[in-house]
Amino acid sequence: MSQPVRIGLIGAGRIGASHAAVLARRVPEAHLTAVVDPRPGAADLIAGPLGARALSSVGDVLADPAIDAVVISAASVAHRDLIVAAATAGKHVFCEKPAGMSLAEIDEARTAAAAAGVVFQVGFNRRFAADFAAAHDLIAGGRIGEVQLIRSLTRDPGTGPADPGAVPQWTIFTQTLIHDFDTLNWLNPGAHAVDVLATADALIAPDHRDRGHLDTAVVVIRYSNGAIATAEASFAAAYGYDVRGEVFGSNGMVTMGEGATTSMRLHDLAGRAAFTARSDTDLLVDSYTGELTEFCRAVTEKRPAAVTGDDAYAAFAIAQACIDSVTTGARAAVTR
Amino acid sequence: MSQPVRIGLIGAGRIGASHAAVLARRVPEAHLTAVVDPRPGAADLIAGPLGARALSSVGDVLADPAIDAVVISAASVAHRDLIVAAATAGKHVFCEKPAGMSLAEIDEARTAAAAAGVVFQVGFNRRFAADFAAAHDLIAGGRIGEVQLIRSLTRDPGTGPADPGAVPQWTIFTQTLIHDFDTLNWLNPGAHAVDVLATADALIAPDHRDRGHLDTAVVVIRYSNGAIATAEASFAAAYGYDVRGEVFGSNGMVTMGEGATTSMRLHDLAGRAAFTARSDTDLLVDSYTGELTEFCRAVTEKRPAAVTGDDAYAAFAIAQACIDSVTTGARAAVTR
Amino acid sequence: MSQPVRIGLIGAGRIGASHAAVLARRVPEAHLTAVVDPRPGAADLIAGPLGARALSSVGDVLADPAIDAVVISAASVAHRDLIVAAATAGKHVFCEKPAGMSLAEIDEARTAAAAAGVVFQVGFNRRFAADFAAAHDLIAGGRIGEVQLIRSLTRDPGTGPADPGAVPQWTIFTQTLIHDFDTLNWLNPGAHAVDVLATADALIAPDHRDRGHLDTAVVVIRYSNGAIATAEASFAAAYGYDVRGEVFGSNGMVTMGEGATTSMRLHDLAGRAAFTARSDTDLLVDSYTGELTEFCRAVTEKRPAAVTGDDAYAAFAIAQACIDSVTTGARAAVTR
Amino acid sequence: MSQPVRIGLIGAGRIGASHAAVLARRVPEAHLTAVVDPRPGAADLIAGPLGARALSSVGDVLADPAIDAVVISAASVAHRDLIVAAATAGKHVFCEKPAGMSLAEIDEARTAAAAAGVVFQVGFNRRFAADFAAAHDLIAGGRIGEVQLIRSLTRDPGTGPADPGAVPQWTIFTQTLIHDFDTLNWLNPGAHAVDVLATADALIAPDHRDRGHLDTAVVVIRYSNGAIATAEASFAAAYGYDVRGEVFGSNGMVTMGEGATTSMRLHDLAGRAAFTARSDTDLLVDSYTGELTEFCRAVTEKRPAAVTGDDAYAAFAIAQACIDSVTTGARAAVTR
Repeated sequence: MSQPVRIGLIGAGRIGASHAAVLARRVPEAHLTAVVDPRPGAADLIAGPLGARALSSVGDVLADPAIDAVVISAASVAHRDLIVAAATAGKHVFCEKPAGMSLAEIDEARTAAAAAGVVFQVGFNRRFAADFAAAHDLIAGGRIGEVQLIRSLTRDPGTGPADPGAVPQWTIFTQTLIHDFDTLNWLNPGAHAVDVLATADALIAPDHRDRGHLDTAVVVIRYSNGAIATAEASFAAAYGYDVRGEVFGSNGMVTMGEGATTSMRLHDLAGRAAFTARSDTDLLVDSYTGELTEFCRAVTEKRPAAVTGDDAYAAFAIAQACIDSVTTGARAAVTR
Repeated sequence: MSQPVRIGLIGAGRIGASHAAVLARRVPEAHLTAVVDPRPGAADLIAGPLGARALSSVGDVLADPAIDAVVISAASVAHRDLIVAAATAGKHVFCEKPAGMSLAEIDEARTAAAAAGVVFQVGFNRRFAADFAAAHDLIAGGRIGEVQLIRSLTRDPGTGPADPGAVPQWTIFTQTLIHDFDTLNWLNPGAHAVDVLATADALIAPDHRDRGHLDTAVVVIRYSNGAIATAEASFAAAYGYDVRGEVFGSNGMVTMGEGATTSMRLHDLAGRAAFTARSDTDLLVDSYTGELTEFCRAVTEKRPAAVTGDDAYAAFAIAQACIDSVTTGARAAVTR
Repeated sequence: MSQPVRIGLIGAGRIGASHAAVLARRVPEAHLTAVVDPRPGAADLIAGPLGARALSSVGDVLADPAIDAVVISAASVAHRDLIVAAATAGKHVFCEKPAGMSLAEIDEARTAAAAAGVVFQVGFNRRFAADFAAAHDLIAGGRIGEVQLIRSLTRDPGTGPADPGAVPQWTIFTQTLIHDFDTLNWLNPGAHAVDVLATADALIAPDHRDRGHLDTAVVVIRYSNGAIATAEASFAAAYGYDVRGEVFGSNGMVTMGEGATTSMRLHDLAGRAAFTARSDTDLLVDSYTGELTEFCRAVTEKRPAAVTGDDAYAAFAIAQACIDSVTTGARAAVTR
Repeated sequence: MSQPVRIGLIGAGRIGASHAAVLARRVPEAHLTAVVDPRPGAADLIAGPLGARALSSVGDVLADPAIDAVVISAASVAHRDLIVAAATAGKHVFCEKPAGMSLAEIDEARTAAAAAGVVFQVGFNRRFAADFAAAHDLIAGGRIGEVQLIRSLTRDPGTGPADPGAVPQWTIFTQTLIHDFDTLNWLNPGAHAVDVLATADALIAPDHRDRGHLDTAVVVIRYSNGAIATAEASFAAAYGYDVRGEVFGSNGMVTMGEGATTSMRLHDLAGRAAFTARSDTDLLVDSYTGELTEFCRAVTEKRPAAVTGDDAYAAFAIAQACIDSVTTGARAAVTR
């Protein structure tokens, strides 16, 4: 095997901790070299047990010649600047979604990466889930004919945000449904989103409706090949993390997203039960491993990653159209 | 047991033949007395093997004191007139959906039935499917909390209409999705549909798009309790008749609609297969039995049936709003 | 349709009540004419609401020319005598399993029926479950090739017999597993059971082990075509009535027996649940309807029923071999 | 993280190649240092792409101070000697099943490992499958009460051995069902196997029956806690690699083994299909990863592995009893 890709992780929050552990324990193609976080002690907590260095300045990571690439799991508002800085410093970049806070920011980010000639991958992990990948292969191979109807949904586990007032207004589109938008784009190969009708409301936290909080949404997207897609999200699924897909074509249908943690079934007085995943890291650890492995391989093989800045832009363009649609109450065009 | 309800079946087409057989062979509470159809020989074909009389005039059925009730499976354009005439003649009425060609017609029909004091039931069979009924019971009992997201879909089996040009323009809403509209209303007890956003296209028969043909549709409905519903239809599902439902609430979710004809599974070189239903009569024979049994019991017990003229009106009101929405491209209000 | 078969039901116990209701409400080919039971009032309780006459003497039923056939759901010890008497009186006979208390008794019963030329069907209801029937059709059509391994199991719902000491010693073989033995014979068309190795114990009620009580059993059967079958039973399944089958052949496998009451699924904090059947009448109402419909049709069409006295004999022969095997601890031959 | 365990792989056959790739690519706790195989070029083929050294002598591996542990995937006949030599050389040992060709050999192996104080793990990978592990946890936690009935089965994918005559006579017990024997022991915690009744035949290759070939087997095992277990194997499952388990207790049941490669489902003209695994490496890659990770962790943490030499002995004791039972036709005791 080639030398592992030496990685500096930027942002030691919940998802950062998960990525660090996946990189150190499940991706032999990676070497977790450093972890950086501005909060005192945050980087140490993660870096220590995994044998990485804890740094407190992003500049130290970017200046370190012994680091090949960065994995960005910092706050979304910082993504664009971090991507641009890392790319400019010649580091390959894996960044959590969204790659920026607007289409303009994402465009800057992808342009900087392209100019620097570095690999730039965005964290659309669903593409690396085994069932979604298998479905994609069948669709791309023509197995179900022309794509006509598509569905993708994300429902976060639990009882909803502790403080709905602290959730930025359009989060359901830019942070949650953006996964579904990328999934829909990817599962409808060769087509692009044309326009959007979004319906959203505060059903979990109705007290916050008047202040613009949105925790439940249904989006209908028309694609250039005529396919009609539905994306759906909720911030609070009592039964666990629910991620599903369905693609209906002229010759058949594929469905994805089982939800059960394993194929074990418990039969007792309550009936027959499948245990469902209670967290993203529970449901998606294989997907996280898959996307980070792909990133390292793209770096090693000096080729673009399977998910690019253009994909990040296309998914965000749908999120932006949703914001427009909710604002106007009408169908909104998707920027290309 | 009480005396069976003596039934005259009006309309000996495909669904009429199915209803006749179900009444004669699977509903002991019913006695199929007569079958009437204006087409020469059509009534005989069905009535003969089932021991019923074949008549050629609806008037003969309505004038016959030995007939208690009619089951109407004639062309939809005739439904309103047949319901009014039968009710006026004092016959209880079971009518296939839709109960009329417009809200005004359905209003006339339900008014005539109410004035005559007869039982009036509409053929929303999905309510009698075992899985849908079980889901309804859980929802109505509060098991999943507040209803937030609902989905209902109907995909007809096969390759689509032989002559798409012969399909009336709004059929997908008034004949197909009307089942889903009633299902959504019923699975969201105590709430009513407020407005609708409909997206529809000719994806199966794109050559007929310019002439207004619609064979694929996705509808988003907002309900008075905030719930957001999606209804979806296609005229051509390669894998069989697909009827599903999903209700997501604050405390959980119920799903309905399995599609497999039995729980038998075949494991061979192709993998593990469930056989899927290839026709409505294949998938729904128990539902047909259930709705016709309910009708006979309502007649015998002198009580309203479980599906009323008001339900027929409410479902059609959503279909009408879909027509409005497709016409204007905007959200359309649902008449109450 | 032909005239319904006029039926006298003998034995108004739990299963008799179920058969009476199925005959009256779900089998138009049947007319439940009379119910007879020696216990005061037992017949009335069932016959009244269903519009049938209550009789207290079997002789009255057998002497009644307005009764075409009997359905026997009396105590097993009475089966042979009732079958012989009914057949001799010219009545067609449907009898619950087992058709007698020994191979000799069953032989007498089938001989009497044959001599009288009446239809004689035994209540092996599993053949009429939709999934088992579908599996049988595939197997008989050669779809899975040569049958090599078979499994059939029956687990009764609940916590086991209230009084294990009152359960006759070999009940698990002659009353419970006899269903599985017939199922195995039927799912291995053209072959016959050769010998048996039975393992049985008192695991639910171990205090009764020393007195010969057996509540759990596993039986291995070798067939003339080499196929090796496993039959398994328990008197107490906490999660409900569990009836399954599996046939593995040279070209594939079919599995049967889902256990869920409907395809509805509930997703909540406990995971995703299927509700399981809690009683035989809950799980098997369609099978009971099917077997009684078949009986009426065989009578009407003057042909042998799908389950014959020979099938009753062949299944009991395996039960007898199990008794021999448990007694000797060795492999026991199956009488043909 | 600690330093990876430096591993020498002995035996570069099919399963050796799989283990090498898993060690190099999926187990960061391992470092694949060397591969050894007596066949010219065999070790190079595997070692090269994975960055390991290719050696031709086991002695070189055992003498190398830079190797901490060996993974033995050589021919079964060599297992005992290799284990003893490696342990004596102070290397930790992971060995494919069976750990020897007889109970005496396995006893020698475990004794040597114990004397040397090295970690000794046997390749019972099923314990590391997610669904089996989840079931085990529930059982061990008392969730289903007292264990009463157990089932474990292994059916190899494909059409059976190319040359049945070349398969050693008792392979189905010592190489295939040994997995099931360990699984049954493990899923029935605290109990041990008492005796065995084995039924086996040549159903896939009946022409080899007379020469003692056995390709299909059903085994019934009685445990010290009364539980009755069934183990079943076939060398040729047309639909893929089939590995399942089922444990029935006084309070419920757990089932394991789904067989589908992913939760993706394809719906087309043939119905609804799950794709099934076509090879052990396809179905079990996560289990292989799990067992090799466990081995490295046991080495690092200086503790016994989760599967020990005693487990290897106990599983082989059941295989030996099966051989005895087939030979005598009677129940055979299991050596402890």
